[in-house]
Amino acid sequence: MFRECLENVRKSVPLVHNITNYVTVNDVANVLLACGGSPIMSDEAEDVEDITSVCGGLNINIGTLHKTSIEGMFRAGRKANELGHPVLLDPVGAGASALRTNTALDLMKELNLAVIRGNISEIKTLALGSGTTKGVDADVADAVTEENLDEAVAFVKKFAKESGSIIAVTGAIDLVTDGEKCYVIRNGRPEMGKITGTGCQLSGMMTAYITANPENRLEAAAASVCVMGLAGQIGWSRMQEGDGNSAYRNRIIDAIYNMTGEELEKGADYELR
Amino acid sequence: MFRECLENVRKSVPLVHNITNYVTVNDVANVLLACGGSPIMSDEAEDVEDITSVCGGLNINIGTLHKTSIEGMFRAGRKANELGHPVLLDPVGAGASALRTNTALDLMKELNLAVIRGNISEIKTLALGSGTTKGVDADVADAVTEENLDEAVAFVKKFAKESGSIIAVTGAIDLVTDGEKCYVIRNGRPEMGKITGTGCQLSGMMTAYITANPENRLEAAAASVCVMGLAGQIGWSRMQEGDGNSAYRNRIIDAIYNMTGEELEKGADYELR
Amino acid sequence: MFRECLENVRKSVPLVHNITNYVTVNDVANVLLACGGSPIMSDEAEDVEDITSVCGGLNINIGTLHKTSIEGMFRAGRKANELGHPVLLDPVGAGASALRTNTALDLMKELNLAVIRGNISEIKTLALGSGTTKGVDADVADAVTEENLDEAVAFVKKFAKESGSIIAVTGAIDLVTDGEKCYVIRNGRPEMGKITGTGCQLSGMMTAYITANPENRLEAAAASVCVMGLAGQIGWSRMQEGDGNSAYRNRIIDAIYNMTGEELEKGADYELR
Repeated sequence: MFRECLENVRKSVPLVHNITNYVTVNDVANVLLACGGSPIMSDEAEDVEDITSVCGGLNINIGTLHKTSIEGMFRAGRKANELGHPVLLDPVGAGASALRTNTALDLMKELNLAVIRGNISEIKTLALGSGTTKGVDADVADAVTEENLDEAVAFVKKFAKESGSIIAVTGAIDLVTDGEKCYVIRNGRPEMGKITGTGCQLSGMMTAYITANPENRLEAAAASVCVMGLAGQIGWSRMQEGDGNSAYRNRIIDAIYNMTGEELEKGADYELR
Repeated sequence: MFRECLENVRKSVPLVHNITNYVTVNDVANVLLACGGSPIMSDEAEDVEDITSVCGGLNINIGTLHKTSIEGMFRAGRKANELGHPVLLDPVGAGASALRTNTALDLMKELNLAVIRGNISEIKTLALGSGTTKGVDADVADAVTEENLDEAVAFVKKFAKESGSIIAVTGAIDLVTDGEKCYVIRNGRPEMGKITGTGCQLSGMMTAYITANPENRLEAAAASVCVMGLAGQIGWSRMQEGDGNSAYRNRIIDAIYNMTGEELEKGADYELR
Repeated sequence: MFRECLENVRKSVPLVHNITNYVTVNDVANVLLACGGSPIMSDEAEDVEDITSVCGGLNINIGTLHKTSIEGMFRAGRKANELGHPVLLDPVGAGASALRTNTALDLMKELNLAVIRGNISEIKTLALGSGTTKGVDADVADAVTEENLDEAVAFVKKFAKESGSIIAVTGAIDLVTDGEKCYVIRNGRPEMGKITGTGCQLSGMMTAYITANPENRLEAAAASVCVMGLAGQIGWSRMQEGDGNSAYRNRIIDAIYNMTGEELEKGADYELR
């Protein structure tokens, strides 16, 4: 199934509209190309409806919010919903500022979101519906571990049901659920946290996966998480003496570029709960 | 002649003002440095006239338009025209949204553009003067091929004459014309399309080339197209097992950095029509 | 001492709020991660106070000013001052446009700046208090050399005393002073100038260093300058045939990632004046 998800991306070359932060945007574009998709970026309110209309899916990432790009997110989101395109929300930094928390909550209310993908702190902020500003490190104490896995799975399933969206929580252990089934994924390397934007990159790629696999969005979302983590493992295995996080960034994107369906099927490390 | 164009860039270190998209801007800056130029970026309307005044050429790229940056484009463009600096327009996504199409057409009307450089879909949109929104893939059926080459050459020559600008169309086969002569260039690799922003990078570099070669803008523009394509070939020849589009991006920029006039003269693959 | 400065960054993982240009922002983020810090970017006026509050230090870089981000700089700066967080100013392009010069001067007036870090042209513009627009190359004639070193040291010491900020001037010879002591640093390679944003990267890293070493800001600032220069030397020593400025960029970041306190202590090339 994961193999099929990957191959559908390469076959259909989904065009993904990204409204994303200016920090990691170049990597998001190159990862979308690497996985077989095609990226377009546009956040100006007057431009986004036209751009979303020529695309297949929409990736909204609130990493560096601007007043004007927020308007673009809503206009693009409504248009994508109207056209039946899947919309993914990456609530970067929700919980770290009121503007981010409230924008993410408003997007959830106003739009039909196919997937919400974030780290556990961001997802908890949205699930609790809290608009108060918190430090980004506080919730890290709540990281998903083997010890609290049952609770974490129950928590994300509940949030998926309530929100009507697939919830993807990424970290040392990744969880991807539609409220019924939950993929528990153990691909990846801790060193990926030393590269800026691996989460943003995954959100872009995941949007391509759910766009290319409309009948199997849950599996497609889980497959993309495995691709990212497995690319992190393959990239790491190619590291040479003296390499650091910059070489690693390149090697991960290269591993996504070269990944085959067979390799994914073999390397994906997950269980269903 | 191409050798001289390249060496003039390295000798004069042209300072290029770029108003460009936030997706590929870092690569544009590094390519400008690699080829021997020097980049400055500024899009704020109140900043652009001062910045353009200290530069030698202006590169306008509409890849991620903002209302405020559009104003910056016009103000910088008028100032550059006033100072006699060459202005290049890269109409990224013209045809994909009304805002992009109309902005590109307005810039053409208002400014004296030394060069317009885009893919065939974008150039056709501008040549037809159409302000209606179209999908970005539709026109790809019109790609320049060996079969339709005569028509394509006639088309770009006509548009160059009408617009008064050098027209550079890049793709599998590249065309660069001033309406009289047309360079038909066959350097490059198809894999370059798997890297975001090779077109934007070329536009930045081309601006440096026309700035450093004021008496030979057509040749300089054609030379820069050959540099980019040849760098794509050299970069590809250095690819190692496991490398993908991220390594390729780095290797292309490195090839531009190391390219000599002699290497360019030898490797440039073009004919005149 | 430099060893201790480096190790304090790795131990405390300072969270740095960056309001920085969109050209080099990704590299700034990856360098912050490489050195042991953690980056957050936010420039929207309504977002910056919350974000600065969860951070330990603030890096303000005026490389691509927008009217809206200028407001963000002042609001974030005031909040950081209120909280006692160190604020660094990188006056990119001061002297090249009135908007940049005036914004930098206003930030100096309004905020308590722990460090001002720039090239000699930018620092001279601020020290002379001039709001007139000048070319970016004009002042390069004033580069710090072995010949004018005494005068240059006296000049930056005077400016440090007048401004109340640590002044860090980087170039072939780097100067870091609090008005009393002046570190004269000779690490680095001329080829670093062929990579966009090594200055911006240093400003991000320096903010992490002064945040993690509140009792020794002068030494921490000087240590970060040595880290950057030494990484430039180590990165250069790892260059292979065919490599250019793109490979070099990656290798420098990798060298920062791998640098130990011992390596820094051994490789730092400085004297005190």
